[in-house]
Formats: sequence, structure tokens, C-alpha cells
Amino acid sequence: MKLIMAIIQDKDSAILSDELVEANVRATKLPSTGGFLRAGNTTFMIGVEDERVDEVLSIIKTNCEAREQFVATPVSMDVPLDNAIAYPMEVHVGGATVFVLPVDSFYRF
Amino acid sequence: MKLIMAIIQDKDSAILSDELVEANVRATKLPSTGGFLRAGNTTFMIGVEDERVDEVLSIIKTNCEAREQFVATPVSMDVPLDNAIAYPMEVHVGGATVFVLPVDSFYRF
Amino acid sequence: MKLIMAIIQDKDSAILSDELVEANVRATKLPSTGGFLRAGNTTFMIGVEDERVDEVLSIIKTNCEAREQFVATPVSMDVPLDNAIAYPMEVHVGGATVFVLPVDSFYRF
Ligand code: NI
Ligand code: NI
Ligand code: NI
Repeated sequence: MKLIMAIIQDKDSAILSDELVEANVRATKLPSTGGFLRAGNTTFMIGVEDERVDEVLSIIKTNCEAREQFVATPVSMDVPLDNAIAYPMEVHVGGATVFVLPVDSFYRF
Repeated sequence: MKLIMAIIQDKDSAILSDELVEANVRATKLPSTGGFLRAGNTTFMIGVEDERVDEVLSIIKTNCEAREQFVATPVSMDVPLDNAIAYPMEVHVGGATVFVLPVDSFYRF
Repeated sequence: MKLIMAIIQDKDSAILSDELVEANVRATKLPSTGGFLRAGNTTFMIGVEDERVDEVLSIIKTNCEAREQFVATPVSMDVPLDNAIAYPMEVHVGGATVFVLPVDSFYRF
């Protein structure tokens, strides 16, 4: 048994929850904030059998990894919107930090 | 030294806090939500000497285990309440998921 | 790699965050409450290479340890404030409980 502590961005929290439920993996979510950007993130606490660790890690990676997204932003704000040319801007979203902890014993009462 | 992470239902949080204080066991509570039912629960973080792990586990079990409760519910809502026959309904309450983690070192500053 | 779980007083949270950022140490903060005084505190989750554990512990100790603070309090409330003699009163502030946990594996996606 391992305890996976996965710190992910709030934006990815709902999709990760759903994917874990679908995979019949129980998780507990803790609200958290990052140190650097004080951005809101979520810490998932996932207890899982040793044999399923890799599977859960790949679920986290697939749904929460850092990625680039293109966002259309008007070039300049003071130009009337209708003839502002929207240039796609590349933003970084997502990202996950994951600790796999050893567990001495596990109980469900 | 072990770090016990106990995820329990909010309903049982106050009683567990009191029992731990009475047993002179320090605990830190983290607000959390479950994956499945998105139900609010509480994660207790309890640092305890190896010799007291079993004692703390039994305190958790006694106060937080899954149990059946009978709830009186009126049979049907449209029947005027006064002559509705309240049948006791069995509901599941409580339940605890507990991880006992090894600790490399412990400090109190 | 270790996972440091440091439970500190809310009052010390901002300074610890800043010091960790300055030392280029990533941390995740979880809002928490203490068992005894139900006082609000904060749980820092800090993943750090083995070689930096002592450095991070000293940052926590320096900024969050229990200490005495003198607070000027008017001697008695019913005496008109202007000629009340303010005696310094010693209060205990700060304090940190720190668990250093072993980590089986660590990933950043
Ligand atoms: Ni880029
Ligand atoms: Ni039943
Ligand atoms: Ni004193």
C-alpha cells in the first residue's frame, strides 16, 4: 500500500476526481495553496495498492501535466475591440507534483 | 514515531477531537472532501509514539467506525403529517480510512 | 527526497512562505486547525532533497519556533486609559511541530 500525495492545479481537480472514480480509486482532496504564486491548488491524497501505483500515476499525468494552451487576447486594450487583432498567446497551464509515500499499515473501520 | 492520517466523516470530528484531547494525544485537523460522494470529511494528522499507535487506532475505531443508524422518516410526504406512520429507516453513518506512515524524524520547535 | 510536514501558527505563515521562496524551496500550504486550542494553524508540505533537509528545518525553526513576546496591557480596564499603567505581559507565540517523512518516489509532470 502506498499513499500518493498529488498537488495539482484547481483547474484539473474535477477531471482528476472523475477519472479516479471511474478507475474505482478512492481519493481525498485537501484545499491547498502554492508557495510561489500563492495560486490555489488541490492536494489529492490517494491510498492505493502497490500494483496500481503506476496506473494512478499515469491517470494523474494524463489529466494534470503541465501544458501550453493558446489563449486569444486582443493586441491592445485601447484599440476599439471590433478591429483589435486577436493574437493567440501561449500560456502554461496544469502541472502536478507527486509524492509516493510508504505506508506501514492501513485500516478501514 | 508514526504519523497517523485518519480520514473520517465530519459528523464524528468533534467527538474524535475530544477523545484525543482526553487521551493527551495531539492532532491536527485538515478540512477535506471525499472523491466519491464529494462529501465533506476531515483528515486528522496524528503524530504518536510507536507504543501508542494501537491505542489511538482503537480511539478512532470506537468513535468513527461505519455504523447503522435508524432514522424515523414519515412514510409518505403527501399524507398529513399527524397521521403519517413513521417507519424507522436504516442509514449508514461514520466510517474511517486510516494510514499509518513511518516517520524519519520528528521535531518540536 | 523527504516530505517535510510542518505545522506552524498562522501568524508565522507569511514569513515562512517568503523565506522558503527566497531559499528556492517549493512548499504547499494546507489550512488546518489544532486539536487542543482549536487554534487556526497552517500545515506546510515541503518536498526537499535529503541534502537540504537540515537547511529547511533551520528555516522553520528560525521563523516559527515557540517564543515569548511582551505585550503591553493596561493594568485594569476600569481605570481611565490615560493614566492606566501598562505592564508588559509575557505571552507565548509561535511553535512548530515537524514530521520528516520518507518518500518512495517523486514525480513532476
Ligand atoms: Ni512556453
Ligand atoms: Ni446496511
Ligand atoms: Ni513563559
